[in-house]
Amino acid sequence: MMKAARIVEPQKPLEISEVETPHPQDVQVLVKVKTVGVCHSDLHLWEGGYDTGDGFMKVTDRGVKFPVIPGHEIVGTVTEVGKAVQGIGVGDNVLVYPWIGCGVCSACRIGNDNLCDTPRSLGLFQNGGYAEYVLVPHFKFLAKVVGIDLDAAASLACSGLTAYTAIKKSNANSQHNMVIFGAGGLGLMGVQIARALTNANIICVDIDDAKLAIAKEMGADHTINSKDPETIQKILGLCNNKGADCVIDFVNAPPTVRMGLAIIRKRGTLVLVGLFGGSIDLSLVTIPLKSITIQGAYTGNYNDMLELLGLARRGVINPFISKRYKLSEANNALEDLKSRKIVGRAVINP
Amino acid sequence: MMKAARIVEPQKPLEISEVETPHPQDVQVLVKVKTVGVCHSDLHLWEGGYDTGDGFMKVTDRGVKFPVIPGHEIVGTVTEVGKAVQGIGVGDNVLVYPWIGCGVCSACRIGNDNLCDTPRSLGLFQNGGYAEYVLVPHFKFLAKVVGIDLDAAASLACSGLTAYTAIKKSNANSQHNMVIFGAGGLGLMGVQIARALTNANIICVDIDDAKLAIAKEMGADHTINSKDPETIQKILGLCNNKGADCVIDFVNAPPTVRMGLAIIRKRGTLVLVGLFGGSIDLSLVTIPLKSITIQGAYTGNYNDMLELLGLARRGVINPFISKRYKLSEANNALEDLKSRKIVGRAVINP
Amino acid sequence: MMKAARIVEPQKPLEISEVETPHPQDVQVLVKVKTVGVCHSDLHLWEGGYDTGDGFMKVTDRGVKFPVIPGHEIVGTVTEVGKAVQGIGVGDNVLVYPWIGCGVCSACRIGNDNLCDTPRSLGLFQNGGYAEYVLVPHFKFLAKVVGIDLDAAASLACSGLTAYTAIKKSNANSQHNMVIFGAGGLGLMGVQIARALTNANIICVDIDDAKLAIAKEMGADHTINSKDPETIQKILGLCNNKGADCVIDFVNAPPTVRMGLAIIRKRGTLVLVGLFGGSIDLSLVTIPLKSITIQGAYTGNYNDMLELLGLARRGVINPFISKRYKLSEANNALEDLKSRKIVGRAVINP
Amino acid sequence: MMKAARIVEPQKPLEISEVETPHPQDVQVLVKVKTVGVCHSDLHLWEGGYDTGDGFMKVTDRGVKFPVIPGHEIVGTVTEVGKAVQGIGVGDNVLVYPWIGCGVCSACRIGNDNLCDTPRSLGLFQNGGYAEYVLVPHFKFLAKVVGIDLDAAASLACSGLTAYTAIKKSNANSQHNMVIFGAGGLGLMGVQIARALTNANIICVDIDDAKLAIAKEMGADHTINSKDPETIQKILGLCNNKGADCVIDFVNAPPTVRMGLAIIRKRGTLVLVGLFGGSIDLSLVTIPLKSITIQGAYTGNYNDMLELLGLARRGVINPFISKRYKLSEANNALEDLKSRKIVGRAVINP
Repeated sequence: MMKAARIVEPQKPLEISEVETPHPQDVQVLVKVKTVGVCHSDLHLWEGGYDTGDGFMKVTDRGVKFPVIPGHEIVGTVTEVGKAVQGIGVGDNVLVYPWIGCGVCSACRIGNDNLCDTPRSLGLFQNGGYAEYVLVPHFKFLAKVVGIDLDAAASLACSGLTAYTAIKKSNANSQHNMVIFGAGGLGLMGVQIARALTNANIICVDIDDAKLAIAKEMGADHTINSKDPETIQKILGLCNNKGADCVIDFVNAPPTVRMGLAIIRKRGTLVLVGLFGGSIDLSLVTIPLKSITIQGAYTGNYNDMLELLGLARRGVINPFISKRYKLSEANNALEDLKSRKIVGRAVINP
Repeated sequence: MMKAARIVEPQKPLEISEVETPHPQDVQVLVKVKTVGVCHSDLHLWEGGYDTGDGFMKVTDRGVKFPVIPGHEIVGTVTEVGKAVQGIGVGDNVLVYPWIGCGVCSACRIGNDNLCDTPRSLGLFQNGGYAEYVLVPHFKFLAKVVGIDLDAAASLACSGLTAYTAIKKSNANSQHNMVIFGAGGLGLMGVQIARALTNANIICVDIDDAKLAIAKEMGADHTINSKDPETIQKILGLCNNKGADCVIDFVNAPPTVRMGLAIIRKRGTLVLVGLFGGSIDLSLVTIPLKSITIQGAYTGNYNDMLELLGLARRGVINPFISKRYKLSEANNALEDLKSRKIVGRAVINP
Repeated sequence: MMKAARIVEPQKPLEISEVETPHPQDVQVLVKVKTVGVCHSDLHLWEGGYDTGDGFMKVTDRGVKFPVIPGHEIVGTVTEVGKAVQGIGVGDNVLVYPWIGCGVCSACRIGNDNLCDTPRSLGLFQNGGYAEYVLVPHFKFLAKVVGIDLDAAASLACSGLTAYTAIKKSNANSQHNMVIFGAGGLGLMGVQIARALTNANIICVDIDDAKLAIAKEMGADHTINSKDPETIQKILGLCNNKGADCVIDFVNAPPTVRMGLAIIRKRGTLVLVGLFGGSIDLSLVTIPLKSITIQGAYTGNYNDMLELLGLARRGVINPFISKRYKLSEANNALEDLKSRKIVGRAVINP
Repeated sequence: MMKAARIVEPQKPLEISEVETPHPQDVQVLVKVKTVGVCHSDLHLWEGGYDTGDGFMKVTDRGVKFPVIPGHEIVGTVTEVGKAVQGIGVGDNVLVYPWIGCGVCSACRIGNDNLCDTPRSLGLFQNGGYAEYVLVPHFKFLAKVVGIDLDAAASLACSGLTAYTAIKKSNANSQHNMVIFGAGGLGLMGVQIARALTNANIICVDIDDAKLAIAKEMGADHTINSKDPETIQKILGLCNNKGADCVIDFVNAPPTVRMGLAIIRKRGTLVLVGLFGGSIDLSLVTIPLKSITIQGAYTGNYNDMLELLGLARRGVINPFISKRYKLSEANNALEDLKSRKIVGRAVINP
């Protein structure tokens, strides 16, 4: 038996109780959880869905079945392996790739399990890491963690990965002006990754001066508090008055997307990442006339996660853990995140 | 002196008169116009702008200066060349690439003059082909026309090129379900090109059964009249109930884009091409959750135009000319296009 | 029990005998073989290895274990499925993707099982299709065959796939001059595919006028018999005297590769496909000065195979079966292939 | 009049004399040279050609005409501009992109002037920077230099650019083992760039321990002196005994290329950069069986040069100048380079 925190019903407190400890068969691996990140997606799961602008998209309509153990940013130690497991052994510290797919659809076939038609993600569609142990369905979803702080590594499986994919989709290069909306956990990770991978002129926009100060420290060339009514003009001024080559919107709420469309230049790319919700009025003729691209980014694939681990090992990115909880405090952790008390990333150490 | 039809003021009849015949210097080339296509963009120029959904975008605000000779789908014969011209000689039949750029901005440097920051397109920002002669600023914007009907070649510079780029941006492959909105000049060209370049399951949607019949002939696997209230369900049924992998919207009006978003599958690409105008209410959270891409397509580059000429020479695509006008009938040509009397493509033979 | 033809030892006649019929578990599928192609790779397997120019590379050193049932171009009917099989049912006609990999290495993770570090290909590293039945390890390696002749479909799993990948690697476009060496089974498939997918000027070179005549029929723009001492000058003449943009060498023997290097233009790509063997003297300084690329092509991935099935279904390519054998004639089939008696493709119908 | 050092005849001392100062017309720009790099290519030009393994390739057969002023790594200050020059003004410090092309061939059209069919490179096909002034044919070949040491910037136009392109062609990522042959000027720049752009495991190989020590400082994870008879085994041991994913050979001489082929893994890429010369015996069958790629790299394009300037400005790369000469010492500079007395980069300050 093991201790676990389960969502039994949306919007009800998580139930913390003893459940059966799974045992790995064949290619499966059992991991003792050391750290599990507390992510906004856990909140969406707990709330039961997303605001679509004109309604509510239930997670149960997307295939979630309650009760479920949440938690998809998992670092731990291998304690038991199935008979067909190769290259991973008991005692290895591992980061778990949670965005598991069917293995057969056209996305999975090229390694993009995160975009699977019928996803089986850990902590969402099957039990995750808010528990003492987690069963990983195949050893290929594990990456060894060596030379990095284990708590810091956890966030690379989701928020880090999402930021990384979003920056990659922006195709930014050295001549480019890049605007990043949001200096929260995702946005700050985005700034660090953009600084590490590109020579772009990075402009970070948020409504919180304290967060913007951290963004500057982490490599943003310019920061703007969007409470300033001149924000658009200021951004344009920093972009040779032509507009931004790419905008990465880690908020993805109506005000940020509207601003993004106002400042994007011809041929520019607007990457939408956040799951804040709402809708905007989109003018159609400008899309072809300016030849712009609007692209959604959703987590990333296993290879991207390995890349990120490489960046972290070289010290180029430093995920920032601000608060730690016990497993018995899982409800507090989610409440704190909901009421915006968390700066950077919080983790649970079961 | 030469005869030319000029737009002197938006929404006023074109003035047909004698103007100075230009003479080519240095790398410039003078082309005697044999055929010039009558394009929807000519109408937008004549009307003075575009409907943006919440206003009117004036072409003069985009850099157009009246009076100007319209006409950007130009085929003709070289009659005089500047001293530095190479590889092109008097008597050559040529298709003119009209989407000329500054040559220095980041788009031009990689050959995408059509996406130039400060475009100098023929028939828009400088004099075009509604005239007996047109001055082409550099011999590199010409492509020899051999083995193709000259009238048919004209449309490859704009409508063909736009359709080609749009199909390419859709990244369609053999396993894909492709939906094409619009079976007008652009859409039919799109169907032909998609048939020639991909194995996709092509579904063409329009409100005109006659046009849909032609689409089927030209290679569409399925056609649907969108007056049918079951259109969305029918499309989904033809797409394994997962949705279309790509939608190419040659109309780009609110009803088609809304339908496009309703039928696009996870990871799908929606390419917006038409300049119809208007706006839609866009739900933000679905963009990252479905990881979709919305992309504008605007004409294409010189290399794409060469590719198209190759396809036409092999007989794989057959631009379809339905009506011919004299230069003196330029106003009639535009009026007929405006009142939707043209099926396929009309041309002027000066 | 089922009848099978096994290679028991290199260079000894295949043993045709009764062996245990396998039974599918879990995700496995049992296929009753209708057609299995007779391929040059079967010959290499039978001979025990390859000529490397300065020695002999044994297949056993690459992981092959005798006895083994050869045969990797397999079309058949599903007769039994494991419990976890989805989307494939008893009675389905299928083409088998034989280039199965480990599923975990960096090639397999992005769907390139054909380039796996530790390949498990059917008919090579595990039993193949020279038998009444073949056990396919996972249903994801099957593609349904509908609307194509079953015998013709078989070759799409290897020779067709190899030709397809090679043409794709050449990056040919409409302005390009493409030289194809070899008008055998692979080369003729290459000509058809190149004709279907590109506007390139296709020049096919072989030593056999009869085969060149077929190449011309299948879409080659020019053919040259390389017994002609002026071959190089002729090719250059057909390539604007600048050289070929791409050369696809389906022979890959010293004379063809030497000629390929002599006719390749600056920035050109030389794709080596055949396994004929031998070696050449390569001048090093010309590689960077001409900025050329030499690339090996080895079969292809599952998605490429689906693409090919699409091309075949549309009638764009027509694999050409010239001879049929019974399973009991397996030795004759290989002998005939070895002594160059086969034009196009031979198959065995067990 | 201005002072210049000209190659009047191969293998004769450069003539240092007064020549006419050019005056810029139209889009041309006159630059007062502050720094010009002394490059191995200058030596090849001076010697009149390259060793091809089986002969000598004369530069005059490639289009060079003597006398010519060498020098293609040019940094200077704009002193006069033609009437059509935009965005560049008198007094600007600039790095000159020297790999100028015809502007019309298929390479130039997509911005790869460095791969032009009929190159017009400065310091090779037209007068370069071993002079007080250099005439640049178009303002688009200039990049402003701000925030970088001017002497250090010079090498970015050639050795830095070549190293950058080579590293990019290797497609290295974080899971990759990268072997760099040569720790001279190019190789050390390659190590720095690889360290900045990838997470690869970098193994640098040379015959000089002092240079290898610098390579380690600049970011190589491992260094090996290839005098060690166990070099191949050691490299394989550092590459999981599978071989290197990519080899970048900045020497490109028979021993290094042979070793490169011995250590390259399946699917690996071998990038050949150096112009050392000679030839090797290449086994043909291994190219397709291992699916490897051999690719030449030759300088780079203007956008790559901008990227590099961005990296230098951020301090990520630091070109290393070891020796400075006056223009009157041009012959000494070349002699010193020839006799291997230069570590890193030498420059002339006219």
